[in-house]
Amino acid sequence: MFMPVGTQATVKTLTPGELTSAGAQIILGNTYHLYLRPGADLIARFGGLHGFMRWDRAILTDSGGFQVFSLSHLRDISEEGVTFRSHLDGSPHVFTPESVVRTQAQLGSDIAMVLDECIPYPADEDQVVLSIDRTTRWAERARNAHDRRDQLLFGIVQGGMFPHLREESARQITALDFPGYGIGGLSVGEPKEVFYRMLAVSADALPWDKPRYVMGVGAPEDLFEAVSVGVDMFDCVLQTRLGRNGSLFTRSGRINIRNARFRVQEGPIDPWCDCDTCRTFSVAYLHHLFRAEELLAYRLASLHNVRWTLKLVEEMRGAIKAGTFAEDRRAFLDNYRPADEGARDEQRRRWLAAQGRS
Amino acid sequence: MFMPVGTQATVKTLTPGELTSAGAQIILGNTYHLYLRPGADLIARFGGLHGFMRWDRAILTDSGGFQVFSLSHLRDISEEGVTFRSHLDGSPHVFTPESVVRTQAQLGSDIAMVLDECIPYPADEDQVVLSIDRTTRWAERARNAHDRRDQLLFGIVQGGMFPHLREESARQITALDFPGYGIGGLSVGEPKEVFYRMLAVSADALPWDKPRYVMGVGAPEDLFEAVSVGVDMFDCVLQTRLGRNGSLFTRSGRINIRNARFRVQEGPIDPWCDCDTCRTFSVAYLHHLFRAEELLAYRLASLHNVRWTLKLVEEMRGAIKAGTFAEDRRAFLDNYRPADEGARDEQRRRWLAAQGRS
Repeated sequence: MFMPVGTQATVKTLTPGELTSAGAQIILGNTYHLYLRPGADLIARFGGLHGFMRWDRAILTDSGGFQVFSLSHLRDISEEGVTFRSHLDGSPHVFTPESVVRTQAQLGSDIAMVLDECIPYPADEDQVVLSIDRTTRWAERARNAHDRRDQLLFGIVQGGMFPHLREESARQITALDFPGYGIGGLSVGEPKEVFYRMLAVSADALPWDKPRYVMGVGAPEDLFEAVSVGVDMFDCVLQTRLGRNGSLFTRSGRINIRNARFRVQEGPIDPWCDCDTCRTFSVAYLHHLFRAEELLAYRLASLHNVRWTLKLVEEMRGAIKAGTFAEDRRAFLDNYRPADEGARDEQRRRWLAAQGRS
Repeated sequence: MFMPVGTQATVKTLTPGELTSAGAQIILGNTYHLYLRPGADLIARFGGLHGFMRWDRAILTDSGGFQVFSLSHLRDISEEGVTFRSHLDGSPHVFTPESVVRTQAQLGSDIAMVLDECIPYPADEDQVVLSIDRTTRWAERARNAHDRRDQLLFGIVQGGMFPHLREESARQITALDFPGYGIGGLSVGEPKEVFYRMLAVSADALPWDKPRYVMGVGAPEDLFEAVSVGVDMFDCVLQTRLGRNGSLFTRSGRINIRNARFRVQEGPIDPWCDCDTCRTFSVAYLHHLFRAEELLAYRLASLHNVRWTLKLVEEMRGAIKAGTFAEDRRAFLDNYRPADEGARDEQRRRWLAAQGRS
């Protein structure tokens, strides 16, 4: 299942009603952002994130760890937890394995994630060994602190780009017996073949009867790869971020709707897609909205990318049941031209910039 | 009836479906903007503005005159028409009474407006006399050029801030026998009491059996005033512009949703309102979206302001039929604190700045 990302208690530009119509069963909320603004206390007063943003399907919250390491002004990592300054106002804060469990209990998500240590990329073996051990100790503390019985708590596997450390981390984390597992520390700037190898190793080392969730992944070719190695859950900001930039998914690859060749094009973005945008508006109209910088453009494009991806994942589920996943994947990839590495490069730059700040 | 403004083939942030649900029966499109981008030829290829933006209710297009005089880099006004440079790219263009009729025929609106001469405010009597005569000659040329039988063409009354010239302009324009009449040249920076007096004089001088349309008016207190003197139609960007700024209509006046006092407020913006925003989301959630600068904020707020105004006008129609308009108006104004003159001052500044440029 694909989870659209609702960082600040909203999947950018879209209403809960539109997400429901688009087939979203679960969305992701970012604990780091929500903790800072509007604050977990306030959200709890409004019935948790479900009540506050009026979303009645499932929510997964991350631990905030990734954002602390990438967005905030990191001050100090110790055995106790992470001290950082808010990217909003510079105010000081501490996240510990216990505090992020409490915060997520206040947010009232259906699935919470443990705090893990996110290390720079690249990282050497000694550094990774230390980090997986700490991630395991933090996971155990999180599990002990977790007492909201209507909420699942997932562990997270780390291990850098070392297959044997990925396996070791999985052994340690699965020994704590979580109801599901995240695969962390990937898609942080490593080459795609390394990403795919680490993904396969990590998935393979996790129990087949528990959901496996690879965090921050959402490009179509990556979804096929991840599903093929046994991953069940994904989240990504790509769909909405690209949408706001005018980059739209089609079965043959992404298009930039601002391109002059779309000025007079009739018909939908992608005839395969059944989103409201494709069922209602021409490519030429979307092109016009983007050229005119109309706010309607961003929501129509976000809706398309979200529904397009959810439909793709629905097809994958159908193909798995029908036993045709391998052919379907091949057929899709034969036709789909993946985007260049621009988006991944940007992610790497931001990650490295964040490391430099800390 | 109140017409939400869809300047660039979109009522900013909203879909046609949302406008229909909000009870909009007719929207306004801006000929100046659409002529420049994406161009009337392109829109005509897509079935006119209705087909291009997928709006199947009525559309009124203005003549573009007001925007030429206020937005563009005006070059020259002659008996033939207006020469100007695009505010987008500086390219030179000419609008004549005939050309704007042709452009609006291409746009395929249900109601088109004649080109009128928009004069600076303040303007002296001699200047106004010349301008109403030219406006009449242009109106006659427009009427002669108009041949789209499924489209109405409305005349426009001018006359500056001189009651007898308003009456004279109305005499000249109504002699041309249009199926409806705009009241132009108001709300351009004049004091409110002058605006109201000119409105009453203009409305009074127009036939009772034809629609009267006051252009660019939409503040609730102005709607009541205009209806009370017999005006039937209004358009205004205020609803969506204020919405994007976080200024929201309530029965007791406008509120600024960013204000800290709304941080924890439960319930809807205005319990009287039945828009989807008010029926779904708390004030606290909207406050959060605005503080976090989330795009969802702008659409939820725009939807509220548009529906709130349409509902107000629906109530006015009901009150007129029931014979209770005067009491209803008094009851509304007793409770409603009009905004300060900030918005009007801004409009005046922009108008004067545009005059200075020309």
